[in-house]
Amino acid sequence: MSDVRMHGFTRRHTVAQALAWLDAKLRPLSSEDVSLRAAAGRVLSQAVVSRVDVPGFDRATMDGYAVVADCTDGASAYNRIHFKVAGDAWPGSSFRGTVARGEAVRIMTGAPIPAGSSAVLPAESVEPAGDGIAALAAVSPGKNVGPRGEDIVAGTTVLDAGRVLRPQDVGVLSSIGCAGVPVVKKPRVRLAITGNELLPAGVEPRDVHIADANGPMLAALCERDGAEVDLVGPIRDDADAILAALDRNADVVIVSGGSSVGVEDLAPMLIAQHGELAVHGIAMRPSSPTGLGTIGSALVFLLPGNPVSALCAYDFFAGRAIRALGGRATVWPYRRVRGVLARKISSPIGRLDYARVKWSDGRVEPLSVSGASVLSSTTRADGFVIVGDDSEGFPAGDEVDVWLYA
Amino acid sequence: MSDVRMHGFTRRHTVAQALAWLDAKLRPLSSEDVSLRAAAGRVLSQAVVSRVDVPGFDRATMDGYAVVADCTDGASAYNRIHFKVAGDAWPGSSFRGTVARGEAVRIMTGAPIPAGSSAVLPAESVEPAGDGIAALAAVSPGKNVGPRGEDIVAGTTVLDAGRVLRPQDVGVLSSIGCAGVPVVKKPRVRLAITGNELLPAGVEPRDVHIADANGPMLAALCERDGAEVDLVGPIRDDADAILAALDRNADVVIVSGGSSVGVEDLAPMLIAQHGELAVHGIAMRPSSPTGLGTIGSALVFLLPGNPVSALCAYDFFAGRAIRALGGRATVWPYRRVRGVLARKISSPIGRLDYARVKWSDGRVEPLSVSGASVLSSTTRADGFVIVGDDSEGFPAGDEVDVWLYA
Repeated sequence: MSDVRMHGFTRRHTVAQALAWLDAKLRPLSSEDVSLRAAAGRVLSQAVVSRVDVPGFDRATMDGYAVVADCTDGASAYNRIHFKVAGDAWPGSSFRGTVARGEAVRIMTGAPIPAGSSAVLPAESVEPAGDGIAALAAVSPGKNVGPRGEDIVAGTTVLDAGRVLRPQDVGVLSSIGCAGVPVVKKPRVRLAITGNELLPAGVEPRDVHIADANGPMLAALCERDGAEVDLVGPIRDDADAILAALDRNADVVIVSGGSSVGVEDLAPMLIAQHGELAVHGIAMRPSSPTGLGTIGSALVFLLPGNPVSALCAYDFFAGRAIRALGGRATVWPYRRVRGVLARKISSPIGRLDYARVKWSDGRVEPLSVSGASVLSSTTRADGFVIVGDDSEGFPAGDEVDVWLYA
Repeated sequence: MSDVRMHGFTRRHTVAQALAWLDAKLRPLSSEDVSLRAAAGRVLSQAVVSRVDVPGFDRATMDGYAVVADCTDGASAYNRIHFKVAGDAWPGSSFRGTVARGEAVRIMTGAPIPAGSSAVLPAESVEPAGDGIAALAAVSPGKNVGPRGEDIVAGTTVLDAGRVLRPQDVGVLSSIGCAGVPVVKKPRVRLAITGNELLPAGVEPRDVHIADANGPMLAALCERDGAEVDLVGPIRDDADAILAALDRNADVVIVSGGSSVGVEDLAPMLIAQHGELAVHGIAMRPSSPTGLGTIGSALVFLLPGNPVSALCAYDFFAGRAIRALGGRATVWPYRRVRGVLARKISSPIGRLDYARVKWSDGRVEPLSVSGASVLSSTTRADGFVIVGDDSEGFPAGDEVDVWLYA
């Protein structure tokens, strides 16, 4: 272990510098078609224009009788006007003839308006009368008729590119006859977990080994942000083994562990040798030993093995990239609330701090946690407060933004 | 078609009455174990108590040298204290011996603290000196040591029952050696789409037929709320065909279409005959022709075929049930914001209204939409405003709650 290495980073990038490098690399991936049933939550890659009117016909918006509207002029409970019932119109099934003056066609909500008729007398404005019906009220032309194209007119842009598809959007796409939906591809993430000290996730820790927490956590974070994850590891701290795990064809490579400047921190050296190590060491706490770069066509994120650092560095850098590649907003997928600090948060100028806090009814309580290794601090926390690198922190009583973990 | 049926519901339930009936039926489903990789977003069915300390050993929190702390007393740049280097300690690999006074063991962050040593001298407080090192600063006992159990002490409840698992929660569960996680089962939903007028989802509408919008929309809503969906349809308006689709072994049966009181509205009659039709007709707009009941062990939701009605009735009733059965909060999964109405919203006393609105920078603009059939109104809308049945609505300028579609 050289002294240089043990003495830490010679220079640290600011978070803003790191983000500037990263953001210049981020554009949405190309498009693929998915089925309607897989479309909710995906990001539309191009605007969708309807080729059809919805509905494609005039239809009844109430149960009742389709009539020539002006034949009801003057109708009331005291001036019943008689109509002969000429047939039925059902949803999906037209009345075959043409409605003449003095005729009515029994019609159900959603059924096509018969030829010749111009309004629907609601069922409650009608009484049976002999072999037909009596109108108890007048209707004007178009009354209780949903015109063709009422919902969507052919040629209309129904949804814009970049839309994160809601359930009802998928319904609208179905209504205009889309079987496949063009969406931004999911970023493919190779997630490589490294560390001689690690047992596979789900194995009870023993002696000087710990169970891998970062693999399941980071995989879930990537999937939350819309990625497809290929998780490998734990990988031993061995240059060849790590190099073999760096999939140059992925969209994103995330390496957890060995991201600092010690002798066992192999990943930065490997990226520098086989790709580009653009950023290494960032003025933030935790996550200072974070690296950003490229290998092949993949963006690379070297995350510290300490799980709180890994979470923080994921949220600042890798998650941002995954969201952007997938066509999503880069902002955190966390709800921002305001709250009043119960105790001060201190942080030196020149370093950004990620402070876990409890939040309840607008009261913000910083958690006393020593290390980046205490993952349970992020499960006890409701969210976090960011202290920018231009700030020395916030005194008790200050109102601050809190990002609530989802 | 009997006159009674064409004259609509003889009586409507209030939304509160319908919810009271429903809520009395709702308890979380039983538990199942899922793997860590499938656990994020699921609901923990029982508290998880750690059987182990995390970490299971004292470990270094910095790179440096493990020493007997009081051997550094008085060390400074002007009073260098010499140590003999006795070996190395790596993550996952102990130093085999015992550190004696005057000895140092080179140690990396995360490595187990060697027997005999009591603190870690950080690398930056050390310089090489002859065949060993010189301490340039003193450390007190425990300095730069993360004690056994620092993260989690055996016997601690790490997560409570009912927790919706975050990515970092999954990490913590992994760190204590959980391979499987006990979670509330996903509600199994049979979703039956009915209507003679319907073409299958994704088929371009033609002549008097419309493409099914409710199937993909409702499936996406159910999945959003944590259900597993078995979608069947479109089913013709035929009693035997609909009856065959009512899966009595599902947790929830949702029928879309034919939920009103016309002759083709078969579902309410079938539920009344073969199960319990507890609620039929609700004083709300849209979604008035909604039914609630049971068949076999399943809760049944009869939703109107008009897609806006189906969406609204889903959110008020079926979604609430799915969330509760899955162990989730019954509240809407929509963000609530405040805003000032640009135009009034009117609604009669005695009826709850679901008004689609645009929302931007605190300005709320009701959408002028006539019908429950205009699904695109819910894609143009940012969310909705609820007018309770005890209110006549809100004048322009009122500040109101808006629920934002997600």
